[in-house]
Amino acid sequence: MADSVITLSDVAAAAGVSLSTASKALNGTDRISEATREHVRVTADRLGFRHNALARSFARGRSQTIGVLTHRASNPFTRVVLATAATELGAKERAILLYDARMEEQHDVTESILQLRARRIDGVIVIGTSTSFRTPSFTSRFDVPVINAFTVPEDPQDTTITADDYAIGRLAISHLLSTGRRRIAHLTAEPHDMAAQRRAEGAGQLLAEAGLQWAAPVRFGRWREEWGEQAATELLAEVPDVDAIFCGSDAIGRGVERVVRAAGRQVPGDIALIGVDNWESLMHDQRGTRHLTTIDVGLEEIGRRVANRLLEGDLEPGTQYVEPHVVIADTA
Amino acid sequence: MADSVITLSDVAAAAGVSLSTASKALNGTDRISEATREHVRVTADRLGFRHNALARSFARGRSQTIGVLTHRASNPFTRVVLATAATELGAKERAILLYDARMEEQHDVTESILQLRARRIDGVIVIGTSTSFRTPSFTSRFDVPVINAFTVPEDPQDTTITADDYAIGRLAISHLLSTGRRRIAHLTAEPHDMAAQRRAEGAGQLLAEAGLQWAAPVRFGRWREEWGEQAATELLAEVPDVDAIFCGSDAIGRGVERVVRAAGRQVPGDIALIGVDNWESLMHDQRGTRHLTTIDVGLEEIGRRVANRLLEGDLEPGTQYVEPHVVIADTA
Repeated sequence: MADSVITLSDVAAAAGVSLSTASKALNGTDRISEATREHVRVTADRLGFRHNALARSFARGRSQTIGVLTHRASNPFTRVVLATAATELGAKERAILLYDARMEEQHDVTESILQLRARRIDGVIVIGTSTSFRTPSFTSRFDVPVINAFTVPEDPQDTTITADDYAIGRLAISHLLSTGRRRIAHLTAEPHDMAAQRRAEGAGQLLAEAGLQWAAPVRFGRWREEWGEQAATELLAEVPDVDAIFCGSDAIGRGVERVVRAAGRQVPGDIALIGVDNWESLMHDQRGTRHLTTIDVGLEEIGRRVANRLLEGDLEPGTQYVEPHVVIADTA
Repeated sequence: MADSVITLSDVAAAAGVSLSTASKALNGTDRISEATREHVRVTADRLGFRHNALARSFARGRSQTIGVLTHRASNPFTRVVLATAATELGAKERAILLYDARMEEQHDVTESILQLRARRIDGVIVIGTSTSFRTPSFTSRFDVPVINAFTVPEDPQDTTITADDYAIGRLAISHLLSTGRRRIAHLTAEPHDMAAQRRAEGAGQLLAEAGLQWAAPVRFGRWREEWGEQAATELLAEVPDVDAIFCGSDAIGRGVERVVRAAGRQVPGDIALIGVDNWESLMHDQRGTRHLTTIDVGLEEIGRRVANRLLEGDLEPGTQYVEPHVVIADTA
């Protein structure tokens, strides 16, 4: 049987004091002797008494609940930020109320905003699916703090914590150079995708600083494994002596690796490969074997940081980037 | 600027009625004319007025919040169930308060349980990381409904929605047989892992029903890509004419595929491969290319179903399984 919730009356009875004394002892709102206060506190702890959090939050007019708006909660990157932020908030006694835009097709996001305001939420986290495109700003729609995660907001004044695609590109090239590679190519996604653009830009900039050029013009295509296969096939025909490929994502990298190996080249002996996303560790967790060398863009760090900055009330306007890091495995 | 929350007073003023009349009209607690009620309702809608959900839930003594206990919220499978359940609950105005056991190492899970009870949560979802091992029961620790997701509870009476490893094994073999394969092997994880055992059992049962035997004894090892490589190397030496491999997970399958292709065999021409987890679609979402044919164990369905059964108060004791499905791609 479930034991029932301990009430203040239970504490008072067990401590042998009046309800009013018990309340004073635990709330610290009136003068009572320190000995009595201590006695009631010890009794309350022994019984497992907790103040009714709901009543406390109601008295304060707040719900200890954070609203979360997602564009698509089923997106694998969104899920990582969401789970990490929810864990961090839960550890600090905050609930989350999630509204997913894809669930809300009938009644638009305005409805979600009204509902969140009716709940007297303490703040809002808006989680995007990528840094590929700018997304609308929600900051002015709420009278509580709003913080954006893993997105590029239309309004640069919005408080935002996101991935640093420029640094990702630099880091990939820096790692390849550190392993002695010099004839480096880059196969990536759509040319109008901001994440692809910024990664290519950062990578090209670091190459130039090292006095090098791309071994072949950057190939833009799609965020897909099959594009990796096609682009790698073209690249090997055009530049047979390429010694490293920076793949715009791990998905592209998988396609590239299959083609490179099928062509009889050793990885990383002949051609080193590095991707972006740390997709294997996102997927395998502790079970995983790391195979593809990759850049971790910092999704968990984004989730932790939006939760903590919101709770600390640190809503400085503008974008703050998390630092990417290299995950070294078999391919570079 | 954020517009402020609309109060009942705003509605009363805009409708030209008293605060008391506005309250009666919207709460339906007293007799007023239908025309007045309708007029106030239309006004409230026009202004975007919502009842203060916090006040309502306080009056009912409940928080519209569901407690969620995870063993490890950073586990990729847990994340899928968590995000799906949170989305489903959010669409129905329920918040979640997440306590992750790994976050709580200092003070044990008992502390989380006390905190959840103090929040006057309406119910609890316990999300596991696998069906590999039995996990402790929490049902009797709460005086609100508890439902388990993606786990094997110690107490078979606990309300549980989880993956059906036996059906997964049967389905994998059924698919391989339907594509004409007859010399089938199975490479899987630890022999004491319940998920590995049940998948092997279901698969072996279906083979027997088809009048067939394994082409080689089932090889138990680890849930790892490198085990897939090792086991496939041994298998090809022992049974060169094997025509299909049921891999206990997609991670094992990746290792197997690399070895099979490096041995010069065509996939699926010479050897068909099928995994378990639908790991590519979990990871790639809409960007993905499917490569490895696999069994989807139904994590999203588990997340949706625990949310809905909890809200509907459908807490029938015992385990309910979700049905797995085949995801056909390049390898089988």
